[in-house]
Amino acid sequence: MTGTTPDSFHHMWTQLAALGRDRSTTGYRRYAWTPADTELRAWFREQAEARGLTHETDHNGNQWAWLGDPDAGDAIVTGSHLDSVPDGGAFDGPLGVVSAFAAVDELRARGTTLTRPLAITNFADEEGARFGLACVGSRLTAGRLTRDQAYALRDADGISLPDAMEAAGQDPTRLGPDPGRLARISAYVELHIEQGRGLELTGDRVGLASAIWPHGRWRFDFHGEANHAGTTRLADRRDPMLSYAETVLAARREAVHRGALATFGKVAVEPNGVNAIPSLVRGWLDSRAPDQDTLDALVTALEESARARAGLDGVELTVVRESFTPVVEFAHTLRDEINRILGGRIPVLPTGAGHDAGILSASVPTAMLFVRNPTGVSHSPKESAAEDDCVAGVHALADVLEGLARA
Amino acid sequence: MTGTTPDSFHHMWTQLAALGRDRSTTGYRRYAWTPADTELRAWFREQAEARGLTHETDHNGNQWAWLGDPDAGDAIVTGSHLDSVPDGGAFDGPLGVVSAFAAVDELRARGTTLTRPLAITNFADEEGARFGLACVGSRLTAGRLTRDQAYALRDADGISLPDAMEAAGQDPTRLGPDPGRLARISAYVELHIEQGRGLELTGDRVGLASAIWPHGRWRFDFHGEANHAGTTRLADRRDPMLSYAETVLAARREAVHRGALATFGKVAVEPNGVNAIPSLVRGWLDSRAPDQDTLDALVTALEESARARAGLDGVELTVVRESFTPVVEFAHTLRDEINRILGGRIPVLPTGAGHDAGILSASVPTAMLFVRNPTGVSHSPKESAAEDDCVAGVHALADVLEGLARA
Repeated sequence: MTGTTPDSFHHMWTQLAALGRDRSTTGYRRYAWTPADTELRAWFREQAEARGLTHETDHNGNQWAWLGDPDAGDAIVTGSHLDSVPDGGAFDGPLGVVSAFAAVDELRARGTTLTRPLAITNFADEEGARFGLACVGSRLTAGRLTRDQAYALRDADGISLPDAMEAAGQDPTRLGPDPGRLARISAYVELHIEQGRGLELTGDRVGLASAIWPHGRWRFDFHGEANHAGTTRLADRRDPMLSYAETVLAARREAVHRGALATFGKVAVEPNGVNAIPSLVRGWLDSRAPDQDTLDALVTALEESARARAGLDGVELTVVRESFTPVVEFAHTLRDEINRILGGRIPVLPTGAGHDAGILSASVPTAMLFVRNPTGVSHSPKESAAEDDCVAGVHALADVLEGLARA
Repeated sequence: MTGTTPDSFHHMWTQLAALGRDRSTTGYRRYAWTPADTELRAWFREQAEARGLTHETDHNGNQWAWLGDPDAGDAIVTGSHLDSVPDGGAFDGPLGVVSAFAAVDELRARGTTLTRPLAITNFADEEGARFGLACVGSRLTAGRLTRDQAYALRDADGISLPDAMEAAGQDPTRLGPDPGRLARISAYVELHIEQGRGLELTGDRVGLASAIWPHGRWRFDFHGEANHAGTTRLADRRDPMLSYAETVLAARREAVHRGALATFGKVAVEPNGVNAIPSLVRGWLDSRAPDQDTLDALVTALEESARARAGLDGVELTVVRESFTPVVEFAHTLRDEINRILGGRIPVLPTGAGHDAGILSASVPTAMLFVRNPTGVSHSPKESAAEDDCVAGVHALADVLEGLARA
């Protein structure tokens, strides 16, 4: 792919386009350990084998395609994930995997001889769409999620993570940390579509990540009293929908005020009948900020405001922090090295989105390359990237892998 | 049951208690044409046959249990429905059916000879929990819902009403008006648990309905743009959850201001992911008021306020009126006659809840008896009624049936 786009690149996208797509929304619904996920994992294995790479699935369900000896150590690893959010776009995840295979093709076309092992990964369950926790595969490997915690995860139908893995033909009994594997990696580089308009604003095709904002998920459970919407006097009501609504608006106000992000994108109502005052409204807050103090202050203020309104509505509130990821500063040495390999003029920018690279950054030197997203739209069927920019991403990744493997 | 509660009354409640109950919420989920509904319908038939009543299912799926000749005309009809809202209580519906069978037992114990035919009914799909439209069985019979409209009804899984009926062993091909049946009825009296605290406040066991407030359901669809909650700048968002939240609060303000009721009890979000700004938030408004003008003004004002907020959020709003029932004034002659039969001192009160009796009131003289509800709680597992009050309801109903059949 020296300057041109080879058939294999197009072919990979054509194959992926059909997998796990919802007809009505045209978005992807590729949730961990579902039939769609199984198809994607089979596709990954085929890509590995077609290139003569050694395929293995580690004991946490992550896939690895090795060029060179996995046990030799000092490996360069690249890749991303193939699962999606509900009604996600085509690029978030798959761009990193497709670009990794394409970069291997490119390096072979260049006749490059690598002096270290190289691996391509597909990390399991990055988006957390099914079990509510993101980056399950990399968290387990890095020891940031225990086997017991993983066994306790349940999807909306009450199916546990180990049962779901087993149903997908995966052995869940050895879930847990994998320090030996991590010790054999000298760098992990994840290429990803940008989830914002930073590169569009600077006019660059490819950028390099500086940091990931600290972020978390909090569940706000507003407990009221179910009653008939057509007969219950307003004064006799304990309607949790009111407390929830006020909290949604307060979250936006707090985010504006503090230069942070706060979103209620998921809600569950019981009994959810048109003529029933709800007994329970459960809303999930996603919040992120440039630093930990700002994020803490935002969530504390929001919880206070929600509690005050709930008191007025006769509603009880419980708040549970479901997940939290501290700020990630990517390794400066690796970032500087990549910048040098790419000519020293690559823009460096932060992101609010979590990634497996962020999880692994405590154990392994990690870096991320971003490819321009002209609209900034992400986690939506409208997510897009220009073909020229994707090709530029592949070239940059090939250059980085080649440069690092020689370093 | 002259003063005491016979075994049959207890026995009926014991049998019903187990049917269609959800273990986790302890509420009832008795939706039309589901297996739970089929069990309830079999129970109704058994009760009829055990008493030597002639059971028939009309072409709209409503059940009838006849004492005397159905074709003789001038019939007195009583009954209610056996289906429920999501996680409903034990009494809303079943109290009217159980009391009807118990009243027949009572009349037989008294040795009363009826000079007119008497029927007990179980109207199909009163709550509309599955297909979104209440009183489907009585609407069809009264010609207030056409066969084509009924065929177009779909449940949340996309199953049509006729397909659901067929799956439950019911022939849907002859759905439609049944004027000949209605012409043979001289009075329909529905006994129902009160859905408010009116009788508790006056200290009465049994009351009589004056009117049903006009009421309707409106669907507010807020269309925004799905995007990543962790990366999209606040300024770039088109978040429909904000417009929805503001509208929930505006509905309560409008209801307080106008002495009416307005409730958002059901919401559906797409894609409903924790880290996704929604593309669509769909909220259902249930609103009722003492008169039509007040209700119209409330919905108009709310729609304007919702549209203004949606404009600020970059969100598009469509509002669809899904159902509407005008005010019902129950027949004064029948009400006066019942009041006379019951000794002239029965309290008369309005209700915000729709009933089959309201639908039928345009075709047949109808009346409703209410049984005291000490908490006013309704459409909830916590709905309750005292046994003494239920027994008083059976006695009152027996007196009314006897008095009307003699009149």
